[in-house]
Amino acid sequence: MNKRVGPRTVRFSHPPILLSTASAAGRSEREGPYGGEFDIAVEDDLWGEKTYELAERKLLVKVTEAAIARAGLKTDDISYMLAGDLLNQIISSGFAARQLGLPYIGLYGACSTMSESLMVGSMIVDGGFADYLVCATSSHFATAERQFRNPLELGTPKTPTSQNTATASGAVILSSVRDAAYPAVTYATTGRVVDFGVSDVNNMGAAMAPAAAETILSHLQETGRGADYYDHIITGDLGTFGSRLLSEIAAQGGVPLPNHLDCGAMIYAGNEQMHCGGSGCGCGASMLCGHFYKRMMDGTLSRLLFVATGALHSPTSALQGETVPSIAHAVAIETGCGI
Amino acid sequence: MNKRVGPRTVRFSHPPILLSTASAAGRSEREGPYGGEFDIAVEDDLWGEKTYELAERKLLVKVTEAAIARAGLKTDDISYMLAGDLLNQIISSGFAARQLGLPYIGLYGACSTMSESLMVGSMIVDGGFADYLVCATSSHFATAERQFRNPLELGTPKTPTSQNTATASGAVILSSVRDAAYPAVTYATTGRVVDFGVSDVNNMGAAMAPAAAETILSHLQETGRGADYYDHIITGDLGTFGSRLLSEIAAQGGVPLPNHLDCGAMIYAGNEQMHCGGSGCGCGASMLCGHFYKRMMDGTLSRLLFVATGALHSPTSALQGETVPSIAHAVAIETGCGI
Repeated sequence: MNKRVGPRTVRFSHPPILLSTASAAGRSEREGPYGGEFDIAVEDDLWGEKTYELAERKLLVKVTEAAIARAGLKTDDISYMLAGDLLNQIISSGFAARQLGLPYIGLYGACSTMSESLMVGSMIVDGGFADYLVCATSSHFATAERQFRNPLELGTPKTPTSQNTATASGAVILSSVRDAAYPAVTYATTGRVVDFGVSDVNNMGAAMAPAAAETILSHLQETGRGADYYDHIITGDLGTFGSRLLSEIAAQGGVPLPNHLDCGAMIYAGNEQMHCGGSGCGCGASMLCGHFYKRMMDGTLSRLLFVATGALHSPTSALQGETVPSIAHAVAIETGCGI
Repeated sequence: MNKRVGPRTVRFSHPPILLSTASAAGRSEREGPYGGEFDIAVEDDLWGEKTYELAERKLLVKVTEAAIARAGLKTDDISYMLAGDLLNQIISSGFAARQLGLPYIGLYGACSTMSESLMVGSMIVDGGFADYLVCATSSHFATAERQFRNPLELGTPKTPTSQNTATASGAVILSSVRDAAYPAVTYATTGRVVDFGVSDVNNMGAAMAPAAAETILSHLQETGRGADYYDHIITGDLGTFGSRLLSEIAAQGGVPLPNHLDCGAMIYAGNEQMHCGGSGCGCGASMLCGHFYKRMMDGTLSRLLFVATGALHSPTSALQGETVPSIAHAVAIETGCGI
């Protein structure tokens, strides 16, 4: 079987199953409409630690440990930890890997990291290199805010198009075990870096929507699937503004996406203080590992295209006048295929 | 064939070949004993660009384009670009991928990124997901210095154990093509995050040496090979101090490493202004893609274990009192195996 089905899409010959997941979320995230579906409650921004950075690391450690335990596994059973986060030098992931003692593959895809890790992790499992590995990512409002924007103490007002970095984390155990009871990763479409010239770092949704559109349309074209093949096409965190933009771009490309949902638009839905919604690697990761995984396990949903989107700028590149390059990776997750 | 040979080591069933490489280096690097073997001369720190960051991006674009051209390929033939660098949000890699238009998988392993990319890239090729992909990484003295240490304008003196971030870059085209004329990646051993409590960020060699030792010893144990199986065991950039430490740790573990070489110790050898030698992702990458690849192609060398080492701290983690966690990934590169 040829695993390559197009210039950017591969099909897995033995779709790796999502054997277990775990998610963690902060207070604002738990107050949202999907708050009851997160597994671990992060009490406050410090969560008993001395710094926000230590708290973020704790999120990643806790979800990884929980996902391993739920799979009925021990740390020694896990061949690789694929992880990344938003902090400089992805310290949340590196220090979490130190604590967990797992062989570690560090990734950086900004908020696209959850689908990046599922894509690479599925290649590793399907390629025969691991029976079990963990894909994990995190974000934290307070660590991201002071690194990417302003010290929290400044109390800088948000612009209407801004999104709120979610304090959240998610981990997935991917496995080569054949069991149709679990959802499995069937296809992956790798993103290219797309840049439509957006230079407003408070409008990430607009910067990332074209990348999401390009990857989704490539995926549908290369797999020969219509958008309606999927119960939902789920973007990571375009927010409400970016989601509307994605719909418009896709419709202009002749592919309406009526079944599109966005984790950033969902996570705080109804909370106007959050402006355009949530963002951060942990937003999509926690929604996938919380709400969506549970709906697949209970049979409510059976076919999802998960498309996490990332803005690849840095504060330095923005200050140097660069626009915001973005990327989106798509993984198709389907039930009944892990056989 | 079982691809897993131990808890951390995999064996490739069809070892991906290094079809071509390209390297670039700055003036100090070209004045070193291996200077004549770099392919592209970086004239000065700005290399005709407005900022050092743009110059670093240019290194990465140029080596990637050169490696693709030398393989007789076009950009469209390349299924993935696996890249990472030292800058926050790995902007050199993300912006280079934007310019090149390649499907992009961003990695972060600090100075271990070249062996991380070869390891993951080999899994992707051997797993049947790509016929050609590029692994690339870069570093730049001026961008790293101001991000990790001090503004250049301060003229801060270096400590004796310090290393100089190399202005250098390397790219490798990995391919599924069977051709014994090219060296191939036969095994990969994935690093765990090791931390011996070094908190001096001007002594990266000491922080990384235990990680290198742990990965090398695991590799030899899991493959059943003696250190003398390899012509050389090549670490990325421990520098002279870290190299001595590695020898001592390995000897204490009962495994003397008389054939060990270190790219950081080699790249500026004889230049006392460089203290303990070179560092940065581009140091090991450019030495592998320059000197070592050429010696494998001309038959002088036939078996190498390439072990790039990375320090996974950030300026923030150091200021918060954390020690320096480190990692090393090993890839075995051998001639006559790409069949």
